[in-house]
Amino acid sequence: MATRPARTYCVPMSGPRHVEQLRSELGEAAVLTDPDRLASYRTDRAQFCDAGTPDAVVLARSTSDVATALRIATEHRVPVVAQGARSGLSGAANAISGGIVVALEKMDRILEIDPANRLVVTQPGVMNATLSRAVEDAGMFYPPDPSSWEFCTIGGNLATNSGGLCCVKYGVTTDYVLGLEVVLAGGEVLRTGRRTVKGVAGYDLARLFVGSEGTLGVITEATLRLRGAAARPVTMAATFGEVRHAADGVSAVVRSPVVPSLLELMDATCLRAVDEAFGLDFGTEVRALVLAQSDAGGAAGAAEIAEIEQVLRAAGALDVVVADNPAEADALLAARRGVLTAFERIGTTMIDDVCVPRDRIAALVEGIEVIAAKRDVLVGVVGHAGDGNFHPTVIFDEHDPEETERAQEAFRDIMLLGLDVGGTITGEHGVGVLKRDLLAREIGPVGLAVHRSLKEALDPLGLLNPGKVF
Amino acid sequence: MATRPARTYCVPMSGPRHVEQLRSELGEAAVLTDPDRLASYRTDRAQFCDAGTPDAVVLARSTSDVATALRIATEHRVPVVAQGARSGLSGAANAISGGIVVALEKMDRILEIDPANRLVVTQPGVMNATLSRAVEDAGMFYPPDPSSWEFCTIGGNLATNSGGLCCVKYGVTTDYVLGLEVVLAGGEVLRTGRRTVKGVAGYDLARLFVGSEGTLGVITEATLRLRGAAARPVTMAATFGEVRHAADGVSAVVRSPVVPSLLELMDATCLRAVDEAFGLDFGTEVRALVLAQSDAGGAAGAAEIAEIEQVLRAAGALDVVVADNPAEADALLAARRGVLTAFERIGTTMIDDVCVPRDRIAALVEGIEVIAAKRDVLVGVVGHAGDGNFHPTVIFDEHDPEETERAQEAFRDIMLLGLDVGGTITGEHGVGVLKRDLLAREIGPVGLAVHRSLKEALDPLGLLNPGKVF
Repeated sequence: MATRPARTYCVPMSGPRHVEQLRSELGEAAVLTDPDRLASYRTDRAQFCDAGTPDAVVLARSTSDVATALRIATEHRVPVVAQGARSGLSGAANAISGGIVVALEKMDRILEIDPANRLVVTQPGVMNATLSRAVEDAGMFYPPDPSSWEFCTIGGNLATNSGGLCCVKYGVTTDYVLGLEVVLAGGEVLRTGRRTVKGVAGYDLARLFVGSEGTLGVITEATLRLRGAAARPVTMAATFGEVRHAADGVSAVVRSPVVPSLLELMDATCLRAVDEAFGLDFGTEVRALVLAQSDAGGAAGAAEIAEIEQVLRAAGALDVVVADNPAEADALLAARRGVLTAFERIGTTMIDDVCVPRDRIAALVEGIEVIAAKRDVLVGVVGHAGDGNFHPTVIFDEHDPEETERAQEAFRDIMLLGLDVGGTITGEHGVGVLKRDLLAREIGPVGLAVHRSLKEALDPLGLLNPGKVF
Repeated sequence: MATRPARTYCVPMSGPRHVEQLRSELGEAAVLTDPDRLASYRTDRAQFCDAGTPDAVVLARSTSDVATALRIATEHRVPVVAQGARSGLSGAANAISGGIVVALEKMDRILEIDPANRLVVTQPGVMNATLSRAVEDAGMFYPPDPSSWEFCTIGGNLATNSGGLCCVKYGVTTDYVLGLEVVLAGGEVLRTGRRTVKGVAGYDLARLFVGSEGTLGVITEATLRLRGAAARPVTMAATFGEVRHAADGVSAVVRSPVVPSLLELMDATCLRAVDEAFGLDFGTEVRALVLAQSDAGGAAGAAEIAEIEQVLRAAGALDVVVADNPAEADALLAARRGVLTAFERIGTTMIDDVCVPRDRIAALVEGIEVIAAKRDVLVGVVGHAGDGNFHPTVIFDEHDPEETERAQEAFRDIMLLGLDVGGTITGEHGVGVLKRDLLAREIGPVGLAVHRSLKEALDPLGLLNPGKVF
């Protein structure tokens, strides 16, 4: 060791030129370069997606920090990946080697809650659950509720146009966006949209940025519409002997006059997994479960649940249970909440996210059974059935290369099945890296050309999250 | 006459080269060039907006016709204006001299009503009322209901992102768009969006085209989301001695838990005009009227109306009347429905369209009183108060140039007031020609630059509705 020249140990303090400039303009504390720290910013929660190690992570604390980072990135032609809580499931937030990460987790302040205009102004790093609880405390309701709501940020929700359990009645993230502040590729700051509930002055830029997965700009502030508080929901669970009957029951609810505030489906694989994990004993004759809620309140809520019960019984429900109080409701929902945990006890999971027309739900679930058999893998079908949005989850042994390959093939087959029955490859998780190669198949060559021209218009150097989406 | 050379009567059959080619490819019957016919395609219903006479009007009967027209327009570098029913109020559909008009009025078929997926697929030339009634007959509900619903097309609604009376509960046109077919500048056909209720595969292109006023493409088909039929509404009218109290009452309803399905306000100028026109005797002590509906149905509807009544009485309502049946409800709504007709008996009207935060309604209506006094013109304030979206209408004598100038100044003052109180220059009518010079003031230089770059990306030759919006 002593014979090696001392200079090989002399790690340059400066790093690459862009890192040096980031440090100089933003301060040492705002720019991470320690390899251990960088490693934790490499990936989101997706499986099988390429990820690199960034040269630096900028811990942005203000719009100005983000603007500075993007200006420097542009000057040095360095790619930029914006990150919230890295809870995404498509690899959209995966870092790029030779690039920088702009982490928004420190921009975590709710700036204003305005009951008179039923809106909230927030920074992007606020957790969905934090925001939802804060507006609930003010007597209002922010509906988008992805399953990851406790550990995903509003900025990430905006970047992927997140959905959730109550979308079936209340819509998705984009439906709640009134205005955005966005840092553009060169570091300029765009404020778009408004505080009013209506407005048609110019193009709807806000909704172009929502769901663009960090490829068009970095969202640094959002003005979000709120609703009045919903009533306490009434919860119902219906069991079925065949998944097809459950699927047809959901389609029948969609055709009925009732719009439930939650309408979920789980197949036999899900029920067996939660049986084994948590000892929820559904019995072998139960091969599917449908969960529904009404938040219409009082007599109206009871009437809605009664109507849903009637529709599901006509579709062949074996048994229907209605919860009278929150504890009972939680017990009914426990199976749904625990399903991913139960799957993870069995093996590694790949969570798909197809969304189909709501009269094709049975075709989807039956087609998935065929795929699971053909590829000889376990697939649990769970999802926001009332939206036609399912998360068929492939469960496999990642230490078995051959099974892993079959799992990936099954995952892809499910997306193609979704397209075949008139649906989309992603209902709410986004394209990212995971589904990039199938996007063109869904949107076609003209759609792809339009995407490319808009991307070039807003990011001519191609520095914002390159290699993602398309 | 006989001495004039015969050739001066010899109108060339061919017209300009692009008209010749349109005729050759689309057939003589599809291409209007008769000056009398062309004259009727010059303008929409806006006042004081430049308009030209087109070289030709293409009566498109299919997407292919539109694509052909746009391809030929591109080949010959000729501007294109798409038109629905020319019921717009901003000049966005005004023709351009030396350009062509693509009229979509013959593309008037509803292609599919799908109750299982709660959607309708329609061509753009269908009237809003025709579509609304057709889906109602199928047991469903298409909410966007501009006042012009009997004589405006769905294509025009999409191009301007139209609102209406029930937006306060149900949102505007863009909230109902699932998918679009759009002919792009060069004649290529883009299909974007989907038939599913959720989907995040790629950018939200559909909502970029919605509200773009024909500057980015021509919408040739739309897949629109529907709701289940609403219950028959309960209607309420509340009178006030001061418009400020009515405005504060509306703001208080917004803060309450109730979301009415209609919440309109009319000031004293409106009430006097409808008194004089239709003999609706409100009495001199009544200086404002608030109209509200609930379509919650049954006991829930009655409870909502009772809650709104309580809120409005607390704000100072003089008298409250609730309609028990449709005939009584129609009588209550007659004043609102008749107000524009009543204004037109007094003089020429310029209908403004500002939208303000809903806690600033009193500031808006009081500010408008100051403007009317300063400019010495009559301004009637009517609008979708629950949205903060007002149509202050300047009424003047167009044969008096000096009064006409004061009217235009008042119109502009009202927009600036809307911006000053945190609102927008247009809530639902669009920018068109009428408000183009104020758009930059609202969206700022960065917003304008982004608009220009997106426009250039999709319409590099600047042929789609040039001179409109920005």
